[in-house]
Amino acid sequence: MSAQLQPVLIDGQWRAAQQPVGSFAATSPGSGALLERHYPISERAEVLTAVEAGAAAAEVLRHTAPEQLAAFLERLAASIEAQAEQLVAIAERETGLPAQPRLRAIEIPRTVGQLRQAAQAARSRAWTRPIIDTQAELRALLGPLGAPVVIFGPNNFPFAFNAVGGGDFAAAIAAGNPVIAKAHPGHPHTTQLLAELALAALQAADLPAATVQLLYHMQPESGLALVAHPAIGASAFTGSRQAGLALKAAADSAGKPIYLELSSVNPVVLLPEALAERAEQLAEELFASCTLGSGQFCTNPGLVLMIAGPDAERFSAAAAQHFASGPAGLLLSDTVAHGIQAALAELTAHGAAVLAGGVPDEREPYRWPSTLLRVSGAQFLAEPAALQTEAFGPVALLVVLEDAAQLAAALRQLEGSLTGAIYSHSGGADDERYAQIEPLLRWKVGRLLNDRMPTGVAVSPAMHHGGPYPATGHPGFTSVGIPAALERFAMRWSYDHVRPTRLPPELRDDNPLNLWRLVDGHWTQARLG
Amino acid sequence: MSAQLQPVLIDGQWRAAQQPVGSFAATSPGSGALLERHYPISERAEVLTAVEAGAAAAEVLRHTAPEQLAAFLERLAASIEAQAEQLVAIAERETGLPAQPRLRAIEIPRTVGQLRQAAQAARSRAWTRPIIDTQAELRALLGPLGAPVVIFGPNNFPFAFNAVGGGDFAAAIAAGNPVIAKAHPGHPHTTQLLAELALAALQAADLPAATVQLLYHMQPESGLALVAHPAIGASAFTGSRQAGLALKAAADSAGKPIYLELSSVNPVVLLPEALAERAEQLAEELFASCTLGSGQFCTNPGLVLMIAGPDAERFSAAAAQHFASGPAGLLLSDTVAHGIQAALAELTAHGAAVLAGGVPDEREPYRWPSTLLRVSGAQFLAEPAALQTEAFGPVALLVVLEDAAQLAAALRQLEGSLTGAIYSHSGGADDERYAQIEPLLRWKVGRLLNDRMPTGVAVSPAMHHGGPYPATGHPGFTSVGIPAALERFAMRWSYDHVRPTRLPPELRDDNPLNLWRLVDGHWTQARLG
Repeated sequence: MSAQLQPVLIDGQWRAAQQPVGSFAATSPGSGALLERHYPISERAEVLTAVEAGAAAAEVLRHTAPEQLAAFLERLAASIEAQAEQLVAIAERETGLPAQPRLRAIEIPRTVGQLRQAAQAARSRAWTRPIIDTQAELRALLGPLGAPVVIFGPNNFPFAFNAVGGGDFAAAIAAGNPVIAKAHPGHPHTTQLLAELALAALQAADLPAATVQLLYHMQPESGLALVAHPAIGASAFTGSRQAGLALKAAADSAGKPIYLELSSVNPVVLLPEALAERAEQLAEELFASCTLGSGQFCTNPGLVLMIAGPDAERFSAAAAQHFASGPAGLLLSDTVAHGIQAALAELTAHGAAVLAGGVPDEREPYRWPSTLLRVSGAQFLAEPAALQTEAFGPVALLVVLEDAAQLAAALRQLEGSLTGAIYSHSGGADDERYAQIEPLLRWKVGRLLNDRMPTGVAVSPAMHHGGPYPATGHPGFTSVGIPAALERFAMRWSYDHVRPTRLPPELRDDNPLNLWRLVDGHWTQARLG
Repeated sequence: MSAQLQPVLIDGQWRAAQQPVGSFAATSPGSGALLERHYPISERAEVLTAVEAGAAAAEVLRHTAPEQLAAFLERLAASIEAQAEQLVAIAERETGLPAQPRLRAIEIPRTVGQLRQAAQAARSRAWTRPIIDTQAELRALLGPLGAPVVIFGPNNFPFAFNAVGGGDFAAAIAAGNPVIAKAHPGHPHTTQLLAELALAALQAADLPAATVQLLYHMQPESGLALVAHPAIGASAFTGSRQAGLALKAAADSAGKPIYLELSSVNPVVLLPEALAERAEQLAEELFASCTLGSGQFCTNPGLVLMIAGPDAERFSAAAAQHFASGPAGLLLSDTVAHGIQAALAELTAHGAAVLAGGVPDEREPYRWPSTLLRVSGAQFLAEPAALQTEAFGPVALLVVLEDAAQLAAALRQLEGSLTGAIYSHSGGADDERYAQIEPLLRWKVGRLLNDRMPTGVAVSPAMHHGGPYPATGHPGFTSVGIPAALERFAMRWSYDHVRPTRLPPELRDDNPLNLWRLVDGHWTQARLG
């Protein structure tokens, strides 16, 4: 069997998996057909081989010029652009995501842009945040972990969040760490091709061959051992809450940082004055955002809160009409369909009524109809945890509260989410109400929006793609936005009376990189002395 | 019994502990006498009462002007200065630390200085690190957790690391969070007096009364429940590895950040050229640093690595002479003595030979003789974990390695420490050797020193008092150094198309606080638009 399996990438070599514990092939959601390439489920010893090779690469990277990291990231970006048609064709087949505009016009440019921003960060060194105290002769900065970073890619962004070439990858490498990539089994071929491009780019940049390694799949126990391994620096995981929390427990017990992006219902609050002004428009916005990409976004608006009244009913009716009339969305896999089914069962068991959708066509196991549910404020407050179950797909739950006090009570019951939105009157007539509501939502979410749905995630230094637990594992870190995303894969250092010639360039008196530095309490690009 | 117990501080009231599960009194190490005040061991319900009050205070603080936080911190600093004589007298009695210079001339000024730096940070808001992307209309900053922070104070700094008024306290408050302080049972009276000063300062600054609460002691299970409570924001713990890791496991499982400062052996590498040049001077430096404060510092130099040879023997002999001749150091408690005894048993069981000290005088249970041990490189490499057991006291272990290769191998076996030092030739004759050794040590420690012992911890923005696990729980955070210490008690936020009037002042176009901000990729204090 193993002769037919695709090779794994370990220590710079594409080699046959050693005694794989099994194999798998991806299914094309569009056709339902099993794809032709078969991939190994790696045995634990193979995972450990990758750790060893990664640790050796990390030691070399400690002495590597940042310019080489930048050159690698830029070359990979250029290769992805050059191979975009092939990548998109493979990813479309594996994920069912449309080639246009989603994969080709949106996700490829975003991925390439991230890699170039990361290259710029690696080169400029601004992310190291140098601080100098000339009197105490103390100098501090952020440096790489100096150890491999394990990245688990999610199912829903075959390029932008891919464990090879995606945002976590770019951040880990730019900070100076090698990557051990665990592909998402939904798009192994896409990941394989990205890794081929990465290997060629590594060679061109003269970086250690094990700077990028790729495994396609492993048993859960092997994943736990991997994130807890003494030789790794940190891990990043984007995916389901259940899998993420299992990895977190393993990493935590070994004292290894792990950065998680888990489920998030992304509450949207529609203030009465906004509903009075534009209920039908808001219904259309919700529908468009909730069904974009068949709702398979971490930032999908899954929970809509509003106060009961005629305008709320107008909104609810208009939204139900949209959701009922939309075509069933193509899903990434039947696993996604099963997840939606389970979530809907949980939501309806706790009192949610189905306003639209809800029941898939049995002949189409890879599609789900856009689904709208509704629950009263009293019901929500009786079972707030169950009614925040994420349905990862084109599904939203309306919560109709009796009054402002009940809305406030519901907001206090929210779990952490990546985003939260407040829609208010366009003329500011409800500014006072906004001021009361905002602090209740602000501390529950990472990114706060006004009058916008949350599905657009700009790659910007000012983006925050994170939020309180259980949306992520730590409210201080972001997975999108450079340079902040690099901080997850960095450690803080200080140099205490270290001789001038032994300081890294970021901290030298002559400031050879022309960095902005905090010197004796003042930001400056000046040279010292 | 409970009528005689000192009151706890909950929700602004000094009140009798409710159904305490027990009581304790501190012992004065100087006299061995039990001190007169008895303190309650709080029942779990009382701990939860503090959490509730703290959570309510946190909501008020969300709307409180930073100027009030700054005023509180400054007033507390002034009160500590005004009450310094009384505070020092009580702390000296409780801890055995000398009033002069340690407590009065060093620790009080340091504590007061920290509070004033924290006040300045709260006022300036520079710690929020604002980032603005005008094109994407995205703005990001750090904000408070908006929830109480639990602080467990250590035994060894009754002022500077006290759960009330110490560094963690100052950082948590400056970031805008209330504090639930768990006193160290070794100095409850000192902590009580600090809390009295804090309560008066809170009232003067018109802050919520539950911004500072104090419990003296609780059962371990109550501590675990506290750090895992849904309503708390984060915890900070400085103390033993065993207690810290138990708290970490509880906090981790609830998704709550916890910042730990645990044991650290603080390796010191003496390069051959430094030994050849000044072996006797280095022996004197080691002795002075290792016995300062009876060795009861987190940054105590506990592990000294050098390559065998006549100069190493000169050093070893001179050091042994110093350690043998020094007076036995007064310890903070008999618990410290028991800890040293257990650590020495572990070290000697794994081959360490005692060169000096080692055996305490049975008539002096609160003293320990300065103790020097020695082990060969081969022994160290055979049992590297056991031979890194921290003896929290005036104890150092010399590791005499055969050659440079064995030194490198030993460095690879080091666990994470707060600090690491390299002594080299004053003229730079061994710069090449330094360059080989440095990366092996750099990634194991938070602060790297040249030709200095690590016991001095300057309070500076460029200080890093942290390091890789198990020295701390995360290599990216520091407990000393403002503003970086505040980042532990902060969350990252972004504002996505939030209307201008609704932005916090740090992010407004007109930059009312005159902050340095990263605007469209450039650092500037400019106003926008």
